[in-house]
Amino acid sequence: MEKVGVAVNSKNQESKATSTITIKGFMSLLMKSVDENGDGSKRVISLGMGDPTLTTYFPISNVAEKAVAEALQSHRFRGYAPTAGLPQARIAIAEYLSRDLPYQLSSDDVYITCGCTQAIDVSVAMLARPGANIILPRPGFPLYELSASFRGVEVRHYDLLPEKGWEVDLDAVEALADQNTVALVIINPGNPCGNVYSYHHLEKIAETAKRVGTIVIADEVYGHLAFAGKPFVPMGVFGSIVPVLTLGSFSKRWIVPGWRLGWFVTNDPSGTFRNPKVDERFKKYFDLLGGPATFIQAAVPQIIEHTEKVFFKKTIDNLRHVADICCKELKDIPYIICPYKPEGSMAMMVKLNLSLLEDISDDIDFCFKLAKEESVIILPGTAVGLNNWLRIIFATDPVALVEGLKRVKSFCERHARKWSMTTE
Amino acid sequence: MEKVGVAVNSKNQESKATSTITIKGFMSLLMKSVDENGDGSKRVISLGMGDPTLTTYFPISNVAEKAVAEALQSHRFRGYAPTAGLPQARIAIAEYLSRDLPYQLSSDDVYITCGCTQAIDVSVAMLARPGANIILPRPGFPLYELSASFRGVEVRHYDLLPEKGWEVDLDAVEALADQNTVALVIINPGNPCGNVYSYHHLEKIAETAKRVGTIVIADEVYGHLAFAGKPFVPMGVFGSIVPVLTLGSFSKRWIVPGWRLGWFVTNDPSGTFRNPKVDERFKKYFDLLGGPATFIQAAVPQIIEHTEKVFFKKTIDNLRHVADICCKELKDIPYIICPYKPEGSMAMMVKLNLSLLEDISDDIDFCFKLAKEESVIILPGTAVGLNNWLRIIFATDPVALVEGLKRVKSFCERHARKWSMTTE
Repeated sequence: MEKVGVAVNSKNQESKATSTITIKGFMSLLMKSVDENGDGSKRVISLGMGDPTLTTYFPISNVAEKAVAEALQSHRFRGYAPTAGLPQARIAIAEYLSRDLPYQLSSDDVYITCGCTQAIDVSVAMLARPGANIILPRPGFPLYELSASFRGVEVRHYDLLPEKGWEVDLDAVEALADQNTVALVIINPGNPCGNVYSYHHLEKIAETAKRVGTIVIADEVYGHLAFAGKPFVPMGVFGSIVPVLTLGSFSKRWIVPGWRLGWFVTNDPSGTFRNPKVDERFKKYFDLLGGPATFIQAAVPQIIEHTEKVFFKKTIDNLRHVADICCKELKDIPYIICPYKPEGSMAMMVKLNLSLLEDISDDIDFCFKLAKEESVIILPGTAVGLNNWLRIIFATDPVALVEGLKRVKSFCERHARKWSMTTE
Repeated sequence: MEKVGVAVNSKNQESKATSTITIKGFMSLLMKSVDENGDGSKRVISLGMGDPTLTTYFPISNVAEKAVAEALQSHRFRGYAPTAGLPQARIAIAEYLSRDLPYQLSSDDVYITCGCTQAIDVSVAMLARPGANIILPRPGFPLYELSASFRGVEVRHYDLLPEKGWEVDLDAVEALADQNTVALVIINPGNPCGNVYSYHHLEKIAETAKRVGTIVIADEVYGHLAFAGKPFVPMGVFGSIVPVLTLGSFSKRWIVPGWRLGWFVTNDPSGTFRNPKVDERFKKYFDLLGGPATFIQAAVPQIIEHTEKVFFKKTIDNLRHVADICCKELKDIPYIICPYKPEGSMAMMVKLNLSLLEDISDDIDFCFKLAKEESVIILPGTAVGLNNWLRIIFATDPVALVEGLKRVKSFCERHARKWSMTTE
C-alpha cells in the first residue's frame, strides 16, 4: 500500500509524497511498457484515464466552445481576474448549484479553481493544521493522499462496500474519527466505483459526520453523470446538517477537462465558514494559486445558461451505452468479477480472480503484462487502494471498448491456470 | 510591517498568513474608499496594479490571440495535459529562454504554471522544510511573504539600495544567510523599483549566493521589458556558478496576464536538480496544481515563434514614453522624491516628503485620502515593504497618467504644510 501513498501518519512528508504514485504516474509507466515491449502490431487502447476527449464518441458542446472563443476575441478578458474568481462566473456557478439545493448559495460561497484537481488540494491545504487527519474512501482517488502528504495531513481510510453498492462503511467512519479529524471525503457519483448514492445514504453520511464532529468534502466532479435511473443528489442538500465543501468542475459534464475550470464551494447555510478569519484565509490562499484563464471564466455564465439539453442527454445516453457494453463483455470473462453494475461517472471496479490465472502475481503484474502483450491500458486497483482489483474506464468509444475487453479476455485465457476447473 | 506580513519566523503560520495584506487586498480597500467616499465627479485612475490590459495603449498581439483561438477550435486540446505541461509548450519555452543563455535548457527543465503567481508559490513550497528561511528583497512583491507564511518558511529581508540603482545589498545577504537558507530571491527587471540589473551585478549576486551556499530564485516576469538602453540579462546566464530557478510568464511581455501562462524553470547546467528525488518531488507537486488550459499551452510554440518583432518594439517604446512622462510630472511635485529613473518593468518607487505635508500621517493615510479625494489609486509603499514610499505603475495610457499625477499634485498642494518653507 505504501507504494500508492496511503499516508499513515503526517511525519516525514517528503518521503511519503515522493512514495505516492498518482494515477497519471501509473499511466505513463504502463504506456512505457507498451512502447518498450509491445510489438506495435496492435493499436493502443486505453481504458485507464478518465479523459473522454480522447475519443470523438463524446463531442464538445458547440455553445461552450463558442462562448470561450467569443470571450477570448472580445479582448475584454485578457487581464487579471480576482483570485477567488471572476464575479460573473462565481454568480453563475452559485445559481447553477443552487438549482438542486433547498437554499440559495451566494457567489461568496464559490471559489474558481484550475479544475477539480486544484479544488482537492485547496480543500486539504485549507484544513491542514498540526495533528490533523482526514478520512478518505478506499478505493478512492489518490490525489487526496498525495495532497495530504504534501500538506502534512494524516490519512485514514474507510472502506466502500461493494456488496452494498459501494456505500460508505459508516461504522468505520465513526471508529476512525477523533477530535483531530478535519474532514470526511466522499466522491459521488463514484470514482472509481461508478456508484451513485441515494438521498437516504447521503443523509446518513451527513448525520455521521455531524455526530463525529467533522465536515464533509463532497467531490462531485462527476456531478449529474448518473445514467441508471438513480438521480444524482448533491451533498450540499444536507448542508444544514453538516458543513459541506463541494468540489466540482466543467471537466466531466461538459467534457472539457483541458479547460481547467473547476470550483471549491462552501455549502454552509448555518454559516460555519462565515467566520471572517476562515473567509480571509480562503481569499489569501487563492491569491497564491493563479487560477484559470480570465476569458474562460468569463464564458461560464453563457455556458451554464445556454448549453443544449440535448448535449447533456447525449452524454448520459452514451455513458449508459458504453457501461452496458462493458458489463456485457465482462460477463464473458470468468477471470474478472464485476460486483456492482455502474450507475454513474466513467469508471468501475472489477475484481481479479487470480486463482484462475497462472503466472500473474497480482493486479500490477496483470496490468503491465496486459499492456505489454495486448497494448491495452487498465489501471491496477492498487493505484486506487484495492489490491488485485482493476479500475476500468468505460467512457470511450464502443468499438475500442469491445476490442479492448476482447483482448483482455484472450489475455486471460492465455494465462489461465490449465487445470483451473479441477482445482476449484 | 507585520501588517504586510513580513514573516519573521515560521511559527503560527495561519495568523501570519491572515495578517498579510496582498497588493490585491490593498487595491480593493482603496477602490472601496473611492466608491464609498468619492463624490463620483472624477473618473477613477489606477496607477496601482500592474495590469496594462486595462488600457488600449498596450494592445494584444494578434498572432498570440489567433494561435490560442486556433488551438481552442482545433478540438485537439480539450483534454488533460501532462501536469508538468504540454511537451510542445515545454520545448518551446526551453528554446525561447535558451536564446539568451550560454547553454541549452532541456524541456525537462521547464514546468508550466498558472502565471508567475503560481510559479512563485511552487518555488517556495518546493524549498519548504522545517526551519527553512528565504531571503527576500525589500521593497519587494508581497506574494513571496504570503507564500512563505502558508508554506511555513521564515522570511528574512535584504534592502534594495536606491542610491545604487536599487541594487541588492550583498553584504546584508551575507549577514542574513545561514545553513537553513533555501534561496535568495531577486526580481529583475525590478518590481516595484523599475531597475534593470547589469551583467556585473547579477554575477556578483550569483557569487554571493554560491558563497553562502544557497540558490537563486530569479523572478523575471518582466523579462525583456527593459527600455532605457541597459539590456535585460537573465539570471540563468550564471547558472553554472549557482543553481537558478527562473520564474516567468507571458503576462507582461505579451500583455495577457489573464491567460495565466507562466513557467518555473531550473537553470542548472551543473545538474544540482537532476537528483531523481528532487525531480520526482517537482513532478508530484505539479500533479496537485491543475495547470493552465491545455489549448493555451498548445498555442505557446506559435506565440513564441511568430509574435511580430514590431509588437515587442511598440511595447518597449510605449513603456519608455510613459516612464518619461511619469518622471517629468513627478519633477513637478516637490512633495514626492524620485530617487532613480526607471529602466524597466512597469513600476517605480518614489518617496513621500511628509515634512512638507500636514494632516498626512504616513503613506497609507496618503493613499486612502488620495483615493477618496481624487479617485486616484496608488499603492502605499508599506504594501511592498517601504513605509512612506509609494509604488507607482506607469504602464497605463499617457492621458490617464498625466491627469492622475496632476491630481496627485493638487492633492499634495491642498495638504501642504502652509509654513513648510520656513520650517525647513
